[in-house]
Amino acid sequence: MSKLAEEAKQQKAFGWAATDQSGTLSPFNFSRRENGDEDVTLKILYCGVCHSDLHILRNDWGFTSYPVVPGHEIVGVATKVGKNVTKFKAGDRVGVGVMVGSCKTCECCQQDLENYCPQIIFTYNSHNPDGTKNYGGYSDMIVVDQRYVLQFPDNLPLDAGAPLLCAGITVYSPMKYYGMTEAGKHLGVSGLGGLGHVAVKIAKAFGLKVTVISSSPQKESEAINRLGADSFLVSSDPAKMKSATGSMDYIIDTVSAAHPLLPLLSLLKVNGKLVTLGLPNKPLELPVFPLVAGRKLVGGSDFGGMKETQEMLDFCAKHNIAADIELIRIDEINTAMERLAKSDVRYRFVIDVANSLSQ
Amino acid sequence: MSKLAEEAKQQKAFGWAATDQSGTLSPFNFSRRENGDEDVTLKILYCGVCHSDLHILRNDWGFTSYPVVPGHEIVGVATKVGKNVTKFKAGDRVGVGVMVGSCKTCECCQQDLENYCPQIIFTYNSHNPDGTKNYGGYSDMIVVDQRYVLQFPDNLPLDAGAPLLCAGITVYSPMKYYGMTEAGKHLGVSGLGGLGHVAVKIAKAFGLKVTVISSSPQKESEAINRLGADSFLVSSDPAKMKSATGSMDYIIDTVSAAHPLLPLLSLLKVNGKLVTLGLPNKPLELPVFPLVAGRKLVGGSDFGGMKETQEMLDFCAKHNIAADIELIRIDEINTAMERLAKSDVRYRFVIDVANSLSQ
Repeated sequence: MSKLAEEAKQQKAFGWAATDQSGTLSPFNFSRRENGDEDVTLKILYCGVCHSDLHILRNDWGFTSYPVVPGHEIVGVATKVGKNVTKFKAGDRVGVGVMVGSCKTCECCQQDLENYCPQIIFTYNSHNPDGTKNYGGYSDMIVVDQRYVLQFPDNLPLDAGAPLLCAGITVYSPMKYYGMTEAGKHLGVSGLGGLGHVAVKIAKAFGLKVTVISSSPQKESEAINRLGADSFLVSSDPAKMKSATGSMDYIIDTVSAAHPLLPLLSLLKVNGKLVTLGLPNKPLELPVFPLVAGRKLVGGSDFGGMKETQEMLDFCAKHNIAADIELIRIDEINTAMERLAKSDVRYRFVIDVANSLSQ
Repeated sequence: MSKLAEEAKQQKAFGWAATDQSGTLSPFNFSRRENGDEDVTLKILYCGVCHSDLHILRNDWGFTSYPVVPGHEIVGVATKVGKNVTKFKAGDRVGVGVMVGSCKTCECCQQDLENYCPQIIFTYNSHNPDGTKNYGGYSDMIVVDQRYVLQFPDNLPLDAGAPLLCAGITVYSPMKYYGMTEAGKHLGVSGLGGLGHVAVKIAKAFGLKVTVISSSPQKESEAINRLGADSFLVSSDPAKMKSATGSMDYIIDTVSAAHPLLPLLSLLKVNGKLVTLGLPNKPLELPVFPLVAGRKLVGGSDFGGMKETQEMLDFCAKHNIAADIELIRIDEINTAMERLAKSDVRYRFVIDVANSLSQ
């Protein structure tokens, strides 16, 4: 097909993009593909602001391709579906998370672990096999292959439910995979930010005893009274950390900055499991003795596959779990990013896209 | 009971001990308790020489209490059993491994994980609750609570089977616990020493595909032709390491010296598991990205409980698995230790105690 014909199959879209490492977002006109036979087109209503959006905007990881429209916690309404689309119809509440494509044939894809497919296509800052570029959810609409679209349950709030599409699945998936869901067991949640606060809620729904481990003593009241944690441990208080030695079955570590693992490993019982979700730039120090002497493990996990993401949404809907959010207009996004860089958000910004994005 | 009466309940024993950090072993007279109602007395026939014997002899870990009689891979014949002993009778082939006591009441003990009991009593360089000191298997006899004595299967060789009591269980237990026994899956065994060579044999008995990962190219032929490994990977060859990227389901890492984990983690597939058994003095560098992006884990494990150790012995007997050993006389032990310090042993020294120990 000629380039002209290709262009004829594009449609206009509008969003906010960054064009350089300053990361400053501003209005941006671009194009998306027309809705194909396997595709669902969404009118975007809300989009969560993930910390990785900030990393990509500022090229912290070194692979940003400008211009970049961020956003991978997308909730909207289906406006068009292709002729092969069976799971969705126009008018449905739908969501799109971290990925919009994968090879569909590898072992990972066949096991519903598309998130580990070597040819995964992320929702933004990525390219399709035909070379076209993908833009994220800080925009008016998006066209996505039905395999990567989620049914957004009726009783989940559209705005506060959006962060579940990344933060929610990122904590839910390791809890399931590493067997950290046994009611009555004791989970430590290290770091109380976007991921951590959802982890507390999901863990309570599984019936776990939850202790928040945080360097910020001022978060104690909120962790217990608002989020439902059972107890709170100040990580900078050696006496309290020592008194909690060997008390936890599992820990979810959401801290992104480089940090020592030994204090966390010491909190675990024999057979304890520490799952790390943050992505520090430097390797962490792994003390081997506590691993060996207590048969402990340190594992990683990276969001989740489509089937499990749907399961997580349905679980959250059943248990009335959503994120605690600050709803912002798109023209407040640069200020929000400044605050996010200082972890000054309780606990996730969500952009009210439909009501604030206009040319 | 008076001290005199206590002493009256002791019996004479003879072995070889080190009395200072030189670690040099020499003949040593000491005493053991009389056989109690729960005890089994063993005439020691063979004792394996574990690398940790060397560490303890030289106080490498800083907690050696001299004089020390090493040895925790003990095979012998029962010569006396207490009136409450039901599992053993005089004349039985029996074994004693890394531990001779634990609290018997904690969660670990109740789950047959005595090896993780906080009050574990190691076979040597340890003290009993009454303050008496324990000496190991480089000696003529030993008295052990029946719970910590193993039936040594008839068709296991007494000499070459001895190292299974530490090296065998140390590799068998993590394979079971971490789910690394699925026939057809691909296991990497890093380091081909006392632990590694037994790991290869046990893994083949489980039906795994086994690749030995070693820095010594000269071990290739032996790994494949003698031990039965399927392939061999020279860890210092970047091209070969790269070509094996993402090819393994599990790795057992037996290397004790501090070493980078990234090359091993890179060999693992998605969901790959790396179990580390060595005890380097320094923390290892743990790169988090491969853990997260591939849902990989790094876990530890510390020998095994009594029930599982018996299971391992029976498994090895069924599959004709024993260690490859160099049988030595007790008066060759100091030379053997010098060679062990240089990893110059194929693959385990075993002391022919009964035929070489005399006053």
